[in-house]
Amino acid sequence: MKAGMPLEYALEMQELLEELALFSAPGPGVTRLLYTPQWREAQLLVLATMSELGLEVRSDPVGNVYGRLEGADPAAKVIVTGSHIDTVVSGGKYDGAYGIAAAVMALGYLRRTFGQPLRTLEAVSFCEEEGSRFPLTFWGSGQVTGLYDGSEAEGVADAEGVTLAAALSGCGLGGEEEAAGNGAVRIAGTGKTALRSDIGAFVELHIEQGVILEKTATQIGIVQAIAGQRRFTVTLDGTANHAGTTPMHMRQDALAGAAEMLMVLERAALEAGEPLVATAGRLEVKPNTPNVIPGEVLFTLDIRHSEEDALERFCNRVISAYEEIAERRGLKLTMTRALCAVPALMDSGLYERLERICREQGRTHRRMVSGAGHDAQLFAPRCRTAMIFVPSRAGISHSPEEYTSPGELAAGLEVLTALLYDLAYKETGI
Amino acid sequence: MKAGMPLEYALEMQELLEELALFSAPGPGVTRLLYTPQWREAQLLVLATMSELGLEVRSDPVGNVYGRLEGADPAAKVIVTGSHIDTVVSGGKYDGAYGIAAAVMALGYLRRTFGQPLRTLEAVSFCEEEGSRFPLTFWGSGQVTGLYDGSEAEGVADAEGVTLAAALSGCGLGGEEEAAGNGAVRIAGTGKTALRSDIGAFVELHIEQGVILEKTATQIGIVQAIAGQRRFTVTLDGTANHAGTTPMHMRQDALAGAAEMLMVLERAALEAGEPLVATAGRLEVKPNTPNVIPGEVLFTLDIRHSEEDALERFCNRVISAYEEIAERRGLKLTMTRALCAVPALMDSGLYERLERICREQGRTHRRMVSGAGHDAQLFAPRCRTAMIFVPSRAGISHSPEEYTSPGELAAGLEVLTALLYDLAYKETGI
Repeated sequence: MKAGMPLEYALEMQELLEELALFSAPGPGVTRLLYTPQWREAQLLVLATMSELGLEVRSDPVGNVYGRLEGADPAAKVIVTGSHIDTVVSGGKYDGAYGIAAAVMALGYLRRTFGQPLRTLEAVSFCEEEGSRFPLTFWGSGQVTGLYDGSEAEGVADAEGVTLAAALSGCGLGGEEEAAGNGAVRIAGTGKTALRSDIGAFVELHIEQGVILEKTATQIGIVQAIAGQRRFTVTLDGTANHAGTTPMHMRQDALAGAAEMLMVLERAALEAGEPLVATAGRLEVKPNTPNVIPGEVLFTLDIRHSEEDALERFCNRVISAYEEIAERRGLKLTMTRALCAVPALMDSGLYERLERICREQGRTHRRMVSGAGHDAQLFAPRCRTAMIFVPSRAGISHSPEEYTSPGELAAGLEVLTALLYDLAYKETGI
Repeated sequence: MKAGMPLEYALEMQELLEELALFSAPGPGVTRLLYTPQWREAQLLVLATMSELGLEVRSDPVGNVYGRLEGADPAAKVIVTGSHIDTVVSGGKYDGAYGIAAAVMALGYLRRTFGQPLRTLEAVSFCEEEGSRFPLTFWGSGQVTGLYDGSEAEGVADAEGVTLAAALSGCGLGGEEEAAGNGAVRIAGTGKTALRSDIGAFVELHIEQGVILEKTATQIGIVQAIAGQRRFTVTLDGTANHAGTTPMHMRQDALAGAAEMLMVLERAALEAGEPLVATAGRLEVKPNTPNVIPGEVLFTLDIRHSEEDALERFCNRVISAYEEIAERRGLKLTMTRALCAVPALMDSGLYERLERICREQGRTHRRMVSGAGHDAQLFAPRCRTAMIFVPSRAGISHSPEEYTSPGELAAGLEVLTALLYDLAYKETGI
């Protein structure tokens, strides 16, 4: 494929993003939570757009929706591209939705321009990734890749007590029933399970959600790895006492202990160097009164690195230091591991191919590690997986302020399209 | 006066403390907030007890109540002893109430045993000291010493929006009206103002609210100074950003900055040595989410020392260090001084006399600095002032767990009584 995809696809993609943003619960930004009416409207619009572009549409039992462009070789594995339709509360227009809109436009363009591919292409709009309504993440891609088997749906509930199972059965998409999108498209469920074993490659286009591309004036980020992540909840029990009458050397001040631990975290993270990041994002003090020495502190750790060994080593170093600090200060330390995700390595053949495409299209590009989690990380251990980033203004994401310019979005679309062409139409293929 | 005050006074004091503790709003411990029905019942019981012991009782326009034992010399200034009747929410039985109950019993004993003194003695139950219902402290002793002139009552309100003025006029004590305590005692208001210029000495007996006496197995603490205090509210504005996608060196993490500041505070306080104490008791993080770098932190500083120069020097050192840290980290620092109280020096003649009394009574004793604020600090600049401490179990105060044993309470009563005898009955007097 040559550079120079007609501008109309980029404009149509931009229109689709603006339309999807209208499907939002009230409040600032975009709030589109799993299985809500706004979510359903958004998925139906995606289906209708896929259908208009000549793709064969369907939903799966959890409400992931697909648009398929059948390939000539029935034995070849499927090339899937897309992202998630749900958002955080008061999120932006681009996180997730961009990867879907671009996938749909890329397949539409490829079909009209090059006809049937050798290998089947599919655009996907995953039902859920953020974990904003129910306390689990990657519900869509997790069903497709086998992380979940659907039995989880009975056991988790949203803040109003509605179970995931009840929300799914009430949403009007998914399952075996048929749903009409836009009053015209008929969608058939694929069967009893969302699990797939026919996927040969997965490609996800996404906004960076960080400042690296912007600060380095780079158009395209080529992801080498999605960082592994550990989350811990740390609690420190000391002794609440009168701030005026307790001498400094007779204190077990839980907040002073926490402060020392946060300094250790930051210093160790700076020493470890990129791509390690370590954050204490939440901290609570009890009793939290100006004239009482803090008796109890809870804080969270979020630690990420693209290499499992380095991540594990760093966590162990922090834990040892924390044990020493707690012991020395007479504080009771409890550390609970709340999350453990191993790093996901992207396919080196694919990211080298992306570098070649960027050079051919004359685009500035750089390899990078994704510190944020993405649907792609679930595919990485199962098939050849690639991930493409475009810049985020000021690195802002999960916010109504999230913004990527139309030109930057169009550049990402062209790079994605070129890669899909390579994978589906060329003899060398995947 | 010889040692050996009859045990009945200590027992009666204990009974009075237990009875006062019953005048409490529902919930754990004792909650007796200014001008509430429970507060009124407690003041009426104090008045009734004073009256039974032969003291002449009255209330002043803000509800401080006095029991007077008139002296023979009309020109001599009055010797006042007592503390405050209000408590914090879910406080204990002893903070404040002990100083009142002991004052009443001491005067009752002195009157019955030695008759009319040379100089007038008064027991006082101040209406308020804690600042628990309205956002001001020392409302009782502050009226007596001229810190307040009563005009403040219109401008402050409790959490329900009731002004201090409305609460006062509705409480059934104070003002010029008469109130009947226990159905028997008649109390006349003293006039239009609570301000007094006739006080020659003020003595306050109080629980330590700290661990020093307990840890050193000492019966009596003789206060040399009540620490001066500064309170600051510190806010740090950084940049909230994605915890996974923002490299360590591109962060303005407000919580990491706060942690460094808390470490500086603790280290500087340990270096400064006793009696300096410095506490960050309250800390709030925004947005306070595990995977978002903290964009804003607010914390409080409470710094105390018995010497004004040392206190000021320490605060300036901390402020300079904080400015340097904020500058280096790219954080916006705002420090607001929320409280500034100068140290209050107790009268050296009186604390030496207290030491002699302890020696005579065979009691272990030590000089100390009070890190907590007390009514006595308002009298210290105006008349000879003394303060006596007894141990607090585990240093716990402002809690239902507050406890001092009957024997420890009795020891304090005997020391107080001996000092009052010296001041009021001896020719050398005050």
